[in-house]
Order: sequence, then C-alpha cells, then structure tokens
Amino acid sequence: MVEIRTPIEVDDAIRRVMQHAVKGEKTSIPLEESHGFFLAEDLISDHAVPPFDRTRYDGFAVRANDTGNGLSKLEVVGEIGAGSIFEGTVRENEAVRIMTGAEIPAECDAVIMLEHVEEKRQDGKTFIEFTRKLTSFENITKTGEDTKKGEVLVQKGTYINPGIMALLATFGYSEVPVVKQPIVGIISTGSELLSVNAALEPGKIRDSNSYMLIGQIERAGGIPVSLGQFADELEVCYDQVVAALEKIDILLTTGGVSVGDYDYIPDILKRLNANVLFNKIKMRPGSVTTVAEVDGKLFFGLSGNPSSCYVGFEMYARPVIRRFLHMEKPYLKRLRAELGADFPNANPFHRFVRGKLVYENGKVIAVPVGLDKPNIVTSLAEANILIVLPGNKEGYEKGEQKTVISLEEQSGVTWGDWLKGGELV
Amino acid sequence: MVEIRTPIEVDDAIRRVMQHAVKGEKTSIPLEESHGFFLAEDLISDHAVPPFDRTRYDGFAVRANDTGNGLSKLEVVGEIGAGSIFEGTVRENEAVRIMTGAEIPAECDAVIMLEHVEEKRQDGKTFIEFTRKLTSFENITKTGEDTKKGEVLVQKGTYINPGIMALLATFGYSEVPVVKQPIVGIISTGSELLSVNAALEPGKIRDSNSYMLIGQIERAGGIPVSLGQFADELEVCYDQVVAALEKIDILLTTGGVSVGDYDYIPDILKRLNANVLFNKIKMRPGSVTTVAEVDGKLFFGLSGNPSSCYVGFEMYARPVIRRFLHMEKPYLKRLRAELGADFPNANPFHRFVRGKLVYENGKVIAVPVGLDKPNIVTSLAEANILIVLPGNKEGYEKGEQKTVISLEEQSGVTWGDWLKGGELV
Repeated sequence: MVEIRTPIEVDDAIRRVMQHAVKGEKTSIPLEESHGFFLAEDLISDHAVPPFDRTRYDGFAVRANDTGNGLSKLEVVGEIGAGSIFEGTVRENEAVRIMTGAEIPAECDAVIMLEHVEEKRQDGKTFIEFTRKLTSFENITKTGEDTKKGEVLVQKGTYINPGIMALLATFGYSEVPVVKQPIVGIISTGSELLSVNAALEPGKIRDSNSYMLIGQIERAGGIPVSLGQFADELEVCYDQVVAALEKIDILLTTGGVSVGDYDYIPDILKRLNANVLFNKIKMRPGSVTTVAEVDGKLFFGLSGNPSSCYVGFEMYARPVIRRFLHMEKPYLKRLRAELGADFPNANPFHRFVRGKLVYENGKVIAVPVGLDKPNIVTSLAEANILIVLPGNKEGYEKGEQKTVISLEEQSGVTWGDWLKGGELV
Repeated sequence: MVEIRTPIEVDDAIRRVMQHAVKGEKTSIPLEESHGFFLAEDLISDHAVPPFDRTRYDGFAVRANDTGNGLSKLEVVGEIGAGSIFEGTVRENEAVRIMTGAEIPAECDAVIMLEHVEEKRQDGKTFIEFTRKLTSFENITKTGEDTKKGEVLVQKGTYINPGIMALLATFGYSEVPVVKQPIVGIISTGSELLSVNAALEPGKIRDSNSYMLIGQIERAGGIPVSLGQFADELEVCYDQVVAALEKIDILLTTGGVSVGDYDYIPDILKRLNANVLFNKIKMRPGSVTTVAEVDGKLFFGLSGNPSSCYVGFEMYARPVIRRFLHMEKPYLKRLRAELGADFPNANPFHRFVRGKLVYENGKVIAVPVGLDKPNIVTSLAEANILIVLPGNKEGYEKGEQKTVISLEEQSGVTWGDWLKGGELV
C-alpha cells in the first residue's frame, strides 16, 4: 500500500526541472505599461549620453583661457535656454548665459556658475565679472560621459523597474520588447477543501493554496489561471488535466501528492505517459513535490500543506517561470546570514525554514517566523527568506552563519552562482 | 534675478510633507485580484487554526494509553479521509486509519505514522501492530495552535503578498478590503524635452523622467496619469495645473524648479495661493525639490535632473502615497551597511548616492552604482538603495559603516523608527 519513493537532492531536482524549461515568445508593449515586465531583448543606447557637451549648472559658458588671476570681465553676447543652441560664435572675452542641461557653444569649454559672477550693464552691453580661474571642461558633462552609442545597457530578461523605464525613454523605446508571460494553471485537490466564501464545516478547511499560488505566480512574472478543484473520480481528474494542458504553459496542482489512499496524481501521470522527473526531494517542507514533463510542458504536483506548497513553488516552479521570461539569471538569490535563533532539534532532513531578514549594525540576521507552528499559514505572510538548515545530528545555534534564500527579489543568479551561493543541500 | 532659497533639513522636509498627507477611501476587490494591493482593514481570523485537532501525518489515530512497552496490537475500526470525520466511537485497543490533515476522533489523542505499523488481517478484521509508545498529542496539531479566533493577523496598510493571500483565503475573505489607489498626475516641463518616439535634435533630449515616475508611482502603490508637458507660456501652464488638480490626488511636475530664467513653478504656486512647504533641501541630488499644498492636495515640483527627480520622489512623494494607502509604516527602511568604495571628496552637502546592496559572508555592503557620472540615468537601473553621506570636510572611506535607505521593499517603518534608523541628515 505504501509506495516507495527515492528522494533526490535539492540541486539535482532543480537541474532536472530546468532541463525542461522553455523560453516564451516575444511581444511588445507601450513604454508606459512596461513596469514589472521583463525585457525580451538587450537594451541598447541609440545615442551617446549626453549627446552633446552639456552644462551641469545655470551660469555662463566661457573660454577657460579667458579666466585667470585677478578679475575676469567678459561680455555676455547671448543666451541659451535648455533645449536651445547658440547660433553665433563666442569670441575672446565673451560669454553666453546658459541654462542647466543646455549644449555648450563650440568655442567654449567651461561654465561659471550664476552664483559666482556679478552682472553689470555698461554702454548698453552686459558684462559679467568674477575672480575664479576655470579649467577646461569645468562644470561640463562631456558627450558620451555617461554612455557610448551602441552600448548594451541592460541585459534581456531583466525586470523593468523605474530606472530602466527612464533608460528606455532616453533611448527611444516607445514600444518595449517584452516576453509574453507564461499562463500558469492551478488545480487544487482535496475533498477537505471548502471555497473561500463557504462557511466552515466539521473536518474541512478553506482552500488557501490556490490563492497563495496566484500571488506567487504573479510575483514570479506569470499569469495565473484558476482551473478549479479536482473531481472525486480518477477518470474525471484525468480529463481535467488533459483539458488544462491545452490551455496553459505550466500546470500546478496542490494537494494529493502524499503517499496515501486517495492520491490520484501518480495514476494520472501514468495514464498521461508523463516523464516523472522526481516525486520526492531531500527537504522539508516540500519533500513530496512531484514534477513531471508531459509533451514538453511541465507539471508541478505541489503538496497540499501550505508551507510545502509555498516552498515547492519557489524552489522549482519559479526558476521555470523566470526562464520562460528569458531571464539569464533565473535562480533565487542565496546569501549568508547569522541565525537569529537556536534550532536545537536534530533533524535528519534538510530543512527550509521560513524567515525574515533583519539588519543590525551592518550584519544580516535570519530570524525564523512562526518556527514552532508546523502547518501555519500566518508565518507565510511575513516570510521573505528561507533559512537553509542541512540535516544533522546536533541542531544549530543562534549566531551561526547559514545560507538563506531570498524570496522577494526581482533579480536572480545564474546556475553557477546558485551552486556557489552557500552550503548545498 | 537669483532668488534666495533657504534650505531645510531632510527630516524636517519629510515631516512638513507628511503633515499634509491624507488617507484614501476604502473599497473592495475579489481575493484573486488582490496581489500587490494594500489592506484597508486589519485581517482578523474568523476561526481558530486549525479549527480542530488534526493529524500531521498519514497513519492511525489511537489512544496513547493503549500503547506501551512491547508490542501494541489494535483493531482498525474505520477510516477518515481528509475532510471527513469519524462518526463512530473509538474504544480501548481500537484505531482508525487517518489521512494527513484530518480531524482526530474525540476518543483518540495520538497518531502513529503509517510507516511505523504492520497491518494484519485476522478473522475478517484488520489489526495494526507496532512497538512504539506514544505520548498524548503526539503527531497532532491542536485546535488553535496556529491562530486563535479573533486575532489580528495582519495590520491594515500592509502590502498583500502571496502569504497574505493564503491568510485571506483561510479566513473567508472572498472580497478584500483595500484602499483606492491615489491618482498621481505627472506634468513634465522643459523645452529641451523631446517625446520618446522623436528623433534626436541638437540641444534636446528625450523626456525620461515622466516614464521613470510612472514606474516609481506604480512601485509605491499609486496610479500614474501622464498629463503631458507644460506649455511655453505662464498663463497656459497655470491653467494646466488648475485643470490637473481637479483630476488627481497628488500632482508631480518634473523640471523647472531650479533657480533660472525660465522657471514658472514659483509663479504658478504664487498665483495658486499655494502653501509652499519648502523649496530647497540640504541634500544632493534633489536639493531644489519644491513641495506645496494647494487646497488640501500636495504638489511636488521635482527637479528635471533624472537623479534628483528620482531621489526627490522616493524621499518625499513615496511616504505620501504610502500614507494614502493607510500604511502604518509609510517611511522608507533605513539600515546600516559597510561602504563598498571610498568617497574621497569633501562635500559640504549631504549626499544621497545611488547604490546597491551586496551581501558578503553575513555582512551588508553598500556599493555605489555609476558614482562618477553625475547626470547618469544608467545608474538608476541598478540602484536599490541610497547611500547617505552626511556633508563633511574629509570624505569617507571604504569599510566605514553608513546609513543606507532601501528603495524596493514593500514594507516600511514608522516615523520613530525612521528617526532611529541611523545618522540623520
């Protein structure tokens, strides 16, 4: 009655899943709607920045050679607003009034700030007087000082944040090449599940995993589609999965993967002739995560336990979504942090403990949330890391340096960096 | 010609702005659409979690007193699937097959795992045999162990992440009380600005700030509305602002706030009879940020320089948006980090340097991005912190502990915590 499953290592599981990850199609959207999408192509500068020698301050464009020891007195022969250019020629001992950001006249090579001059009218002409000696290019940003033309400024697969929107605008991307987001289907299983608006009944709980997964899918960059609950009969469940696979890029189920009497997932996968990549992993929670490949699409059988479902998604489904979005660094960031609590119990399993990062005087501390509550959903609300505790015989002590996995960042790491990220489990 | 402005301290500026911040109206949205919104009310548990004594594992519900030294042999008198309850009575030396998550029968107080028993058929009856002694409540999660009924689980004003969606589902929130997002208008100024799809012209650059602000507003939780560019005439600009104020909750302009010939913002504010809170701050970039209150609405005159505009928004406009969303902790998080580079130049101004956080063996390091490039937009793409360098005479050295401000987190701090967050500037 009890099926024997062979657990595999976490990194091995991730590697197997990613061998079947596919990249999504490209499309484009208007720049003003691009926040939170992922670039489908490298962002390239179509011109130098600044595109011309530009003043950093309001003031007067001058020739540095005209300034020197003692008082300089220059005639103001014109003015340049931002966005205008000076049409004339600036001769010796002449200056041009210039606004922040405007282009420096060809003959000038320095700017004296407005605050540093005295203006005088004399014989119907305007003069400025100052004592400062200027050096060539003082207060000027040179052409291309920020960026050369043709430079790759942002790699494809990068999350579009406000700074990247500014770059896209600067380089003329009124339409932004982005990746079509993967459609990620969710089927929940379990006859103990009530819908959210149902009153509680003896022995039953409300379905929380499918809503949690909606949030996780959106955070990862996918489009969630709720496909309801599995029926009670195997035949109908099978049809549901077949119908779902037509509509989605990635399929998730939650519940029904533990070794028990009413678990249909293994039977469904067998009938689908699926390539089961693994059905047990050396970790807790999430050890009974099953992943299979069906006709080129990935099927994630996540646990019905909220913590296991959460961790299983982040560890195995999220990199697949990130790869779909063409991200060059689809893996979760790992970092080292100091344990903020004792973990006294020996545990033969590698544990992934929900926690949050706290910064204290330049140190990073990993504080567990809801540690003593095994099935808790409340702890998931606060969690922004998973603390990695390799299986051992002694437990761990507060203050030890351990690896944690960051959950809320929109940037990631390469496979090489993931492996270098700390202790592997 | 040069207007004299009196710069104020950063914290004073924030305090003045927040005195005029208002809270938005409440509304509700379906749970499945709530990711990324902010709770308008506290999230309260409508029942205990778990709502009944529940088994953690697949196995058999037993009476701990029936287990002991040597072999226990119990008769299996029924079974309980997840979501079902046992209708009968469990007597001495009897057990009930039970699935993970199911409710424990009233007479039982422990669960023996499936893996730890041997099942036997004898005289048409089923028995289990095992040698383990169980203690009361072994392998059981007790009623209310996670959460009591009526507990406040998440404070209003909290960003709705995947874990909170799970909580909302668990406690029956099919509709989620959220705050209506503020409508934040953007007017860009500056005759040097071209639209994004225009070809470059001498002396001109494309308008990047208004797109950057779209992203910043969305990241902060607002709804951006682009209101185009200011006209060239004061009279028309004034009308544009009056019309904009009708449509929005918060108004941003970018450009036209430096002390120069073509700057209409001070005149417009005068004609509006606006309450100017400040027009200069002791910081760089962003020193010429102007904030005014007009008939109960806040007007932010942000600089036209991309870095100044970016920093001015995050420091002063973002907390206002967060307060609108009823966040109890609307201020940006501060933390201490080690400087990842030398800052050799003395600088009389407090500086806010764009940087990114790097974690190295449990230490937090603040690495500047694009440090030597004053007007750069490219550095904004990578920045996730502002490194705070108080004005001084000597510069700062790599390795020193300094305050940094975190830009990408969806949680924040209270005013008290902001003030405690490190060196104030």
